[in-house]
Amino acid sequence: MTRVAVVGGAGYIGGDLVRILLAHPEVDLVAVTSRSLAGRRVDGAHPNLRGLTDLTFTDPGRLGRCDVLFTAVPHRESMGQLGRFAALADLLIDLSGDFRLRDPAVYAAYYGVEHTAPGELAGFTPGLPELYRKELAGADRIAVPGCMATAAILALHPAAADGLLTGEVTVDARTGSSGSGVSAGPENLHAERSGAMRVFAPTGHRHEAEVAQATGLPTRMTATGVEAVRGVQVLCRVTLAEGVDERVLRAAYRRHYGEEPFVRVVAQKRGQYRYPEPKLLAGSNYCDVGFAVAPGSRHAVLIGALDNLVKGGGGGGVQSLNVRMGWPERTGLGFPGLHP
Amino acid sequence: MTRVAVVGGAGYIGGDLVRILLAHPEVDLVAVTSRSLAGRRVDGAHPNLRGLTDLTFTDPGRLGRCDVLFTAVPHRESMGQLGRFAALADLLIDLSGDFRLRDPAVYAAYYGVEHTAPGELAGFTPGLPELYRKELAGADRIAVPGCMATAAILALHPAAADGLLTGEVTVDARTGSSGSGVSAGPENLHAERSGAMRVFAPTGHRHEAEVAQATGLPTRMTATGVEAVRGVQVLCRVTLAEGVDERVLRAAYRRHYGEEPFVRVVAQKRGQYRYPEPKLLAGSNYCDVGFAVAPGSRHAVLIGALDNLVKGGGGGGVQSLNVRMGWPERTGLGFPGLHP
Amino acid sequence: MTRVAVVGGAGYIGGDLVRILLAHPEVDLVAVTSRSLAGRRVDGAHPNLRGLTDLTFTDPGRLGRCDVLFTAVPHRESMGQLGRFAALADLLIDLSGDFRLRDPAVYAAYYGVEHTAPGELAGFTPGLPELYRKELAGADRIAVPGCMATAAILALHPAAADGLLTGEVTVDARTGSSGSGVSAGPENLHAERSGAMRVFAPTGHRHEAEVAQATGLPTRMTATGVEAVRGVQVLCRVTLAEGVDERVLRAAYRRHYGEEPFVRVVAQKRGQYRYPEPKLLAGSNYCDVGFAVAPGSRHAVLIGALDNLVKGGGGGGVQSLNVRMGWPERTGLGFPGLHP
Amino acid sequence: MTRVAVVGGAGYIGGDLVRILLAHPEVDLVAVTSRSLAGRRVDGAHPNLRGLTDLTFTDPGRLGRCDVLFTAVPHRESMGQLGRFAALADLLIDLSGDFRLRDPAVYAAYYGVEHTAPGELAGFTPGLPELYRKELAGADRIAVPGCMATAAILALHPAAADGLLTGEVTVDARTGSSGSGVSAGPENLHAERSGAMRVFAPTGHRHEAEVAQATGLPTRMTATGVEAVRGVQVLCRVTLAEGVDERVLRAAYRRHYGEEPFVRVVAQKRGQYRYPEPKLLAGSNYCDVGFAVAPGSRHAVLIGALDNLVKGGGGGGVQSLNVRMGWPERTGLGFPGLHP
Repeated sequence: MTRVAVVGGAGYIGGDLVRILLAHPEVDLVAVTSRSLAGRRVDGAHPNLRGLTDLTFTDPGRLGRCDVLFTAVPHRESMGQLGRFAALADLLIDLSGDFRLRDPAVYAAYYGVEHTAPGELAGFTPGLPELYRKELAGADRIAVPGCMATAAILALHPAAADGLLTGEVTVDARTGSSGSGVSAGPENLHAERSGAMRVFAPTGHRHEAEVAQATGLPTRMTATGVEAVRGVQVLCRVTLAEGVDERVLRAAYRRHYGEEPFVRVVAQKRGQYRYPEPKLLAGSNYCDVGFAVAPGSRHAVLIGALDNLVKGGGGGGVQSLNVRMGWPERTGLGFPGLHP
Repeated sequence: MTRVAVVGGAGYIGGDLVRILLAHPEVDLVAVTSRSLAGRRVDGAHPNLRGLTDLTFTDPGRLGRCDVLFTAVPHRESMGQLGRFAALADLLIDLSGDFRLRDPAVYAAYYGVEHTAPGELAGFTPGLPELYRKELAGADRIAVPGCMATAAILALHPAAADGLLTGEVTVDARTGSSGSGVSAGPENLHAERSGAMRVFAPTGHRHEAEVAQATGLPTRMTATGVEAVRGVQVLCRVTLAEGVDERVLRAAYRRHYGEEPFVRVVAQKRGQYRYPEPKLLAGSNYCDVGFAVAPGSRHAVLIGALDNLVKGGGGGGVQSLNVRMGWPERTGLGFPGLHP
Repeated sequence: MTRVAVVGGAGYIGGDLVRILLAHPEVDLVAVTSRSLAGRRVDGAHPNLRGLTDLTFTDPGRLGRCDVLFTAVPHRESMGQLGRFAALADLLIDLSGDFRLRDPAVYAAYYGVEHTAPGELAGFTPGLPELYRKELAGADRIAVPGCMATAAILALHPAAADGLLTGEVTVDARTGSSGSGVSAGPENLHAERSGAMRVFAPTGHRHEAEVAQATGLPTRMTATGVEAVRGVQVLCRVTLAEGVDERVLRAAYRRHYGEEPFVRVVAQKRGQYRYPEPKLLAGSNYCDVGFAVAPGSRHAVLIGALDNLVKGGGGGGVQSLNVRMGWPERTGLGFPGLHP
Repeated sequence: MTRVAVVGGAGYIGGDLVRILLAHPEVDLVAVTSRSLAGRRVDGAHPNLRGLTDLTFTDPGRLGRCDVLFTAVPHRESMGQLGRFAALADLLIDLSGDFRLRDPAVYAAYYGVEHTAPGELAGFTPGLPELYRKELAGADRIAVPGCMATAAILALHPAAADGLLTGEVTVDARTGSSGSGVSAGPENLHAERSGAMRVFAPTGHRHEAEVAQATGLPTRMTATGVEAVRGVQVLCRVTLAEGVDERVLRAAYRRHYGEEPFVRVVAQKRGQYRYPEPKLLAGSNYCDVGFAVAPGSRHAVLIGALDNLVKGGGGGGVQSLNVRMGWPERTGLGFPGLHP
């Protein structure tokens, strides 16, 4: 059994990661840290885990060595503690934003602070097996992309990689309330957010930079919080290169994703679920992607959907771990989501 | 014009009271206080009021004289400051829990603190025109009942007043998230409360004591937070006195409420809205009441529904003000609610 | 009193129109028709109106003369019956899609059927006082724009009219479930739609053509159903003309909308309600508009929000009626919406 | 591998049963029937299963022999076709209401029709391992109890079986919208049901009879639809026998459920999840139960919560199947539910 610890396990991403790791047959979850809840039961913060674990939170300062360390801490903290983390485990899987962007100047522009460990950036492999499976097999440091970035990158990748797009990409991203985290402020009270459509980042959301980096396309992202607990959906408006039509697009998606365990191409003629719908994906590690072309035009909309706490969070990290360890990629990630 | 001020106007109850008062044709809203937001625009805290007022919050310490003072402050604070409030206006309308219970021992039992102004309790008239219209006409101090208490009292009143009930009443009360207030903690984040059915007071909710006091019947109340922003619904299980059947019950409701401007009897044979439904009442001052008798039995369920921030809050206060001032009772309270 | 009738009053738009008309001080609502519910009480279909009206639905075939006829019927039916409607009243206010587009070829392209009364198109004035107030003063036939079109047109208008934009507009439109109507199919069951983000028109939504017509700008619209009952929000991505910045934009919005009774400019520096939020507008006739410019760029997002059943439905029609009759424009439309 | 078929697999209960069976390591799902969707893909009706199955719906008339037959058909149909079902498989697991009540007179009273196969009632064992594990080990016909009945029976069982209760039980049951099924009418549209608290059975709900039968206690049940997709919660008001207090109650729950794989006792001192919360149980086979005693009284509230489509539906059936086949009881039922 591989000994795994989670740093920052009191939050929503950390909690869902713990849920997945507890059921993972190759993993022995040895510690979950929380500064504020040290000594308290893990199932107190994550009551869905009652009966599944007797773990208590470990004070981060008392964490011992393990094989794999997941870090689910706020950005800045991750780069600040990288040395400590690296001393604790040979394999690091970081869920923060600190090691996602290769260029420290881009980091500074989007995060508003200088990167304090720019020399380490090149050492991280993106935790996105669909694009970096080969690199992940030998990686010792993995940075899982942001939730909206993951959805957008996977929606765009087949078309971008095959050169089927031209010009700028604009991404309209919508996200549920769990993305604001367990320590969100009063603006995320149920009474405020229920039924709301909150444009919290009309321009320049941080995940925009990740999409541009992964696709090589100039990108504009707008982010809105809509009523859902889990779930991200992105609509990417693109211009197709000359001669590209829906048939060509479909073939590209099939070719790139036909064998992918966690990407489904959803672009049907009818039905209320003919395009990717995050409602179906709560708890699942799938990212559904689809597309629609405006008839007689080169204008297309590429769509992606996922659960921000699974494929866009800890699930993406565990999938990367599976790849890295040579375990079957679906291990521990079998839950398909519910309907209705 | 009658000069009115609101103490504690930054919360949900205070804010909705401000909305009603701004549109009230007899009222000049001269001040709204908030300790934390003093000097800031009122429509910053209550953005639905943009364009309707340029008021800024007044520091409570700088509040001047006016004709009517609404106090929407936490319990304990209201009894603590009664002297100050009384010096500011001749007519006080209190929305806190401090002056609802006549017996200070009952107050102590339900609120966990001694009442600090027990001699003032008898000076308050309940702000519930359906039961105390005559008394309100001459009242100078009015205490608006709690939201769930209002719904339960109005659901029970015709049957209780006419001696149609026997034994104990059990009240199952459900409430939306606005009842937790604007300063609710992280347990009321959207991600936590969406889709939840939270039993927050399985026994002994404070409003239980108000129901027992108003109806004279021993009462048990259970309170659950369900998914809605506004809205309270109560199901009161009762035993009918011998010989009482649905026909008798219906006649009692008609007789008591036939002329009431804000109580509608809703007990129909079919349709999804055949019983009181708070969804229809958001923003409205109606309390809908209904009933169902188990065939061939003396077991009945009396049902009430209202908007906790209107009829169960500031709207009930304004209705009482209308009665007190001799204005038409519906003044300023005309919005009927929406469907769907 | 002006005698008004509503054709097609059993649906959501018709029902909310009835709510507004019943409280309108200049209007005598003489009839509401419904084929399927003829003879049944209006408050059976619209239970929020209990106690406010004793009207029963009239069979459409038995409708008599009146002063003003609102028609809230499906598209195709409106153009098919125009002759009959015109014989019933001198002033027609149509809420369907049939008379919104001036060019019958565009109608055919977007609605998939030929227009059967192309000669009548020029006789209709758009029911959008912000753009057509002068024309409405003398209009006898008024076509209220679609809900998403209204939001987008009002969001774009100041910038478009002043020549501040260049190139194509892409509109990301989100709408609540009431837009699907009372006769929506099983795909709109609560169990299916709760928490969903349903891309129902990734390209070519009908309202797209109205936006292009009103603004003169090539337009692409994507429409998604999100979790809310009422409410439309549009995000319009635009490219600013050279030299246009946020200051210029803000000045244009102020100049165009500074005196508008039902448009508020919402573009603040902070707060969860710093951009237009439909949650605040349920039941209200406001359309809130705002904007954000990506720093150091000519990329901007123009945002609009409204209640699809009020400003984007019957409320827009009543506002147009007020203009047409010379009544104060706010008459009967005073409800500001709720928070929370 | 055991060959299993599902009759009536197009609905919500059937669909979730298919989800569980597809992942069950001992089961080979050989057929899923639907009259209306025969020949269509199963993942068309249940899009969360995309990529997990290529099954198409079988016409019920063409269903062949198998080892186990689950029947998820409407009541009346199940008893009408029992002979056919029995010819198809040696083990029947029925999810309808037809074989839950032992007394045909009670069935007639609650279902409004005569039972057409009263002689078969005694042949069915309730699919509730917590009460009937021994009997299930040898059962060939299993009737899974109703969702609200399951929650109430499990909440009441320890106290009822140990003789800790006296007098009547009243059950306040709340359920999410999936309970109305995929063919629910327009009253279950999202626009109608969102935020609603719909008292659909103030007295005499059918599951009431099941609770009385299983506990031996006179029972009154009230049923309300609240806003959630999945989830049932019951509040059972009881009177404790003399001398019974919270300590005695807790001991009974621990003794009865300490070893149960799918019942957790949740009755804590603090926290928003201190009582059973169905929100945590979506997709899981747990039934959480808890209790609260009014201080200084014999009045108690016993609480139960579950997912109506899993523990209150197909999951309860699969758990019973596991018991019957001698497989580990948790097989195929490991998903714990999500937070948030």
